[in-house]
Amino acid sequence: MSYRAPVSDIVFTMRHVAGLDRAVADGLYGDLSVDLAETILDEAGRFANDVIAPLNREGDKAGAKVKDGIVTTAPGWKEAYKAWTEAGWNALPGPVEYGGQGLPTLLNSACVEMWNAASMAFGIGPVLTHGAIEALEAHASDDLKSRYLEKLVSGEWTATMNLTEPQAGSDLAALRSRAEPVGDGTYKITGQKIFITYGEHDLTDNIVHLVLARLPDAPQGTRGISLFLVPKVLPDGTRNDLRCHSLEHKLGIHASPTCTMIFGDNGGAIGWLVGEDNRGLNCMFTMMNNARLAVGLQGVAIAERAYQQALSYANERRQGRAIGAVEGMSPIVVHPDIQRSLLTMKAMTAAARAICYMTAEAIDRAHLEQDPARAKKAHERASLLTPVAKAFSTDIGMEVASLGVQVHGGMGFIEETGAAQHYRDARIAPIYEGTNGIQAIDLVTRKLPLSGGETVHAQIASMRAVVTRLLKENVPAFGATASRLRDAIESLDRATSYMLQAISSNAQGDALAGATPYLRLFGLAQGGAALAETALAAHALSTSGDADPAHAGRIALCRFFAENIAVGAKGLEDTVLGGAGFLQDATLALAS
Amino acid sequence: MSYRAPVSDIVFTMRHVAGLDRAVADGLYGDLSVDLAETILDEAGRFANDVIAPLNREGDKAGAKVKDGIVTTAPGWKEAYKAWTEAGWNALPGPVEYGGQGLPTLLNSACVEMWNAASMAFGIGPVLTHGAIEALEAHASDDLKSRYLEKLVSGEWTATMNLTEPQAGSDLAALRSRAEPVGDGTYKITGQKIFITYGEHDLTDNIVHLVLARLPDAPQGTRGISLFLVPKVLPDGTRNDLRCHSLEHKLGIHASPTCTMIFGDNGGAIGWLVGEDNRGLNCMFTMMNNARLAVGLQGVAIAERAYQQALSYANERRQGRAIGAVEGMSPIVVHPDIQRSLLTMKAMTAAARAICYMTAEAIDRAHLEQDPARAKKAHERASLLTPVAKAFSTDIGMEVASLGVQVHGGMGFIEETGAAQHYRDARIAPIYEGTNGIQAIDLVTRKLPLSGGETVHAQIASMRAVVTRLLKENVPAFGATASRLRDAIESLDRATSYMLQAISSNAQGDALAGATPYLRLFGLAQGGAALAETALAAHALSTSGDADPAHAGRIALCRFFAENIAVGAKGLEDTVLGGAGFLQDATLALAS
Repeated sequence: MSYRAPVSDIVFTMRHVAGLDRAVADGLYGDLSVDLAETILDEAGRFANDVIAPLNREGDKAGAKVKDGIVTTAPGWKEAYKAWTEAGWNALPGPVEYGGQGLPTLLNSACVEMWNAASMAFGIGPVLTHGAIEALEAHASDDLKSRYLEKLVSGEWTATMNLTEPQAGSDLAALRSRAEPVGDGTYKITGQKIFITYGEHDLTDNIVHLVLARLPDAPQGTRGISLFLVPKVLPDGTRNDLRCHSLEHKLGIHASPTCTMIFGDNGGAIGWLVGEDNRGLNCMFTMMNNARLAVGLQGVAIAERAYQQALSYANERRQGRAIGAVEGMSPIVVHPDIQRSLLTMKAMTAAARAICYMTAEAIDRAHLEQDPARAKKAHERASLLTPVAKAFSTDIGMEVASLGVQVHGGMGFIEETGAAQHYRDARIAPIYEGTNGIQAIDLVTRKLPLSGGETVHAQIASMRAVVTRLLKENVPAFGATASRLRDAIESLDRATSYMLQAISSNAQGDALAGATPYLRLFGLAQGGAALAETALAAHALSTSGDADPAHAGRIALCRFFAENIAVGAKGLEDTVLGGAGFLQDATLALAS
Repeated sequence: MSYRAPVSDIVFTMRHVAGLDRAVADGLYGDLSVDLAETILDEAGRFANDVIAPLNREGDKAGAKVKDGIVTTAPGWKEAYKAWTEAGWNALPGPVEYGGQGLPTLLNSACVEMWNAASMAFGIGPVLTHGAIEALEAHASDDLKSRYLEKLVSGEWTATMNLTEPQAGSDLAALRSRAEPVGDGTYKITGQKIFITYGEHDLTDNIVHLVLARLPDAPQGTRGISLFLVPKVLPDGTRNDLRCHSLEHKLGIHASPTCTMIFGDNGGAIGWLVGEDNRGLNCMFTMMNNARLAVGLQGVAIAERAYQQALSYANERRQGRAIGAVEGMSPIVVHPDIQRSLLTMKAMTAAARAICYMTAEAIDRAHLEQDPARAKKAHERASLLTPVAKAFSTDIGMEVASLGVQVHGGMGFIEETGAAQHYRDARIAPIYEGTNGIQAIDLVTRKLPLSGGETVHAQIASMRAVVTRLLKENVPAFGATASRLRDAIESLDRATSYMLQAISSNAQGDALAGATPYLRLFGLAQGGAALAETALAAHALSTSGDADPAHAGRIALCRFFAENIAVGAKGLEDTVLGGAGFLQDATLALAS
């Protein structure tokens, strides 16, 4: 079973949850119309289906290979990447000034979902290039911009993020790579970096590494880290003093080369400072926020892919007899337990997609909104939603991929089926670009306090407004959606108050102890509210004469989420409100 | 990080949850004393740690290989299997009459957990041999017993279960393999079987296949299936007409050869009927119940292994600074979010272990109890608990293994670390020996109605009795355990009444739709009650002067489970009580 981009679900979510129409009406997106957006997405979907998706299984089997520092990607990958950049897909969100199409993050996010659903190992490469483009645009000198941005925007060159070192992963304060000023404006970079995605490959002639390193006499900790641009090939055409030492042997995304990079074996790799001295982490955060949403979209993507594969299998595989059927075997999709699995998969995927697209729209509005107060609100909304988009979506990516294996029964455990690859691939997304635990801590300790809690309260108010609409419409097909969703949102509200209180009273332990269940609770309430928005839109369209049967399906999916998934909210609230009490004897419990 | 068998936790659970002391006092276990049991388990633990565990990673890398129908196991496996049988471990639960030690299922279950924690791919082989011994003991002719049981009991030969065919997995009614009577008491077996665990290997000289096939003119469906013993090597020393066609390329348990078996390419493999004509499924069920508990124990085992590995990493890896620490990096185990992950892993593992051991004791009592009324009750309790032991434990096996990867951060995704192997290996257990969906349906439709619901109600009463004890003891260190647990048990009680009502009123859809969340709910309530039993025992020992710090740890773990995991019960109850409503437009939701 290959992938078929779900463009109509994507567009429906963009319009009725992420507010595409409103953004267009507000003039945020310039010439882009809803119709044009749909046309672009149709085209992107076709490319994802026809060119990228067929590479996925072969890429997994062949993997990326390294020999003498030269990395070879899997058969067909080079050609596919070339076709992809030539069709302009890499340039879609890039700045117009450097040859990009300047299209919104929201539109590109839908594309990122499709590239990654077609193949996560393919899709992750451009995520890093796009992050680098943003970081350079925001912080680099005009000279560096003019030298590098055009080729990164087109995709003729790719970029990487070199953060992690063996002793410095989640904790970048421990970083040791060094940069010595040469005196001519360049720096000599030395150090070892690990887990560098597409750190070396044969897709392009040059690779632009963004490297975190310390200047001599820089302060200790995160305030002594600077960012450098270190190209594989120097402007004069010679090779820089950097190399791929080895590739990791990974659980999944085998076609994506994960490199250990050595800088400065022969005296130092030549690099240029990006932004100010010792402000490297700030520059990197520009890059990471973009990448975090993109990784969240990978969660959506792998979930969608796994769902499609499981649904297809369930429609074909015959075992047992449906209730009421007279003879013969029925396709397993008719069995209630399989339907529960498939609906869980689809509902969680749809909820995560909606959260990611909402985040993308907030990012766009933060950049493009003329009114400073509104722009600030959008910026804070994006900041609030980004960790949820990253962690909730990647958790569900894993859960959905696992359900996908289960729907296949024994065939799911056989690699040839493909379901197992999704289960393996999905496992990285909760880890990279900041583990989901880090995301939860970021949400609770940095994002909830934004504007004194106003940002999160406004978000909760927007969820409550959906419940008000549900109650007003009072549609029987929605079942218990309104009350289940209201309960979930009130749980979120109480848990939020608890967290804000814990932070303001310096009870950091209580906040940290419940951060992960809090984030999940946020995802359930926000995801449920978002699906209710799609369902209300579907209901409105139905009653106004649109006979598309998908509308009834959207209502049923929303109802399923509220009645079967959002009901987990109360248990999560209980957990959050339990605070750090459980940590008291944790050491004994873990030792025994 | 290798494996260290947690013998003291195992013994504590056997004594204070599974009632080892009571069973010994009741004379159920003959000469076996609690001390002797502990000595045996210490010895088994040592074997698992020292001989089997070191094979696990190499077995994963090398895998089992097939060439021209000959299967070669990974380096070292043959020697380890030989040492294991020679030390008498295969014979431990076997009938004394055929050279076994006749030790209880409870004791063997603890061993099965340890073999599988050391290596799931190793542990699964003997599970099938033991199932075959039980099936032959219960149903085979004396002639077959005398020819095969001794060597199966010692482990000199192994056995397999040949059920699945390409078109017949969960639905055995579709089975096509055929058996023609030769006239001399033997049958010629023809057909293809898939997913045959250890169907061919080089560990032993002979392999005894138990094969389901149809006699000529047998009725259609499951009532026309008979069971045959089909040895690889015939009594006269010649090779039987059967062969391994190929091995599956699997996600995990690479060292366990999963074979496609061809019977009767050259006229028919010679077999002997086991039990009566057309009653093969009955015979097979004897085998499968044993195997289901064993697979549940695999869930416990992989969870324990993954937990140990994650704890070890969390104690070594330094990142970030603990709250209150002044300088330097702290081991990540001090961070509240990591502690939550580790406690979740350990608490779920302990709960699943307790449920499996309770099930094992019930199986023993069903066989060994002299009083027929008590034996019947024990049999029904075992029947009720078996699907929970299988499905709940294997689900948590997967969840814990996934958390284990996450605790490792980026290193978790690298195969060399070993956490990824657990994540891959764990994925099979919810699938084989009846998918967890099948287990849930079995629980709800066949097990809840036992004795008109009395069996399940007695089980719930036993959980309530634990809450009564908790309330009476009223120990501050238990936190909210009593109330959280009471809530979970009352949720289970209401969900049970709903299910019994649905079944008796023929609302099959409602029962089937909620079967999976119902089973999870059962596991949470039962697991919480079981952990409270260990905590109450730990508290009693502490107050009577036993200064072992593990006791405080057991109380903390019980509290953590009640306050952080059992709180999910209400959401599951809501889901169950929602019935089949969500299925109404499911087809539309899945199509859209």
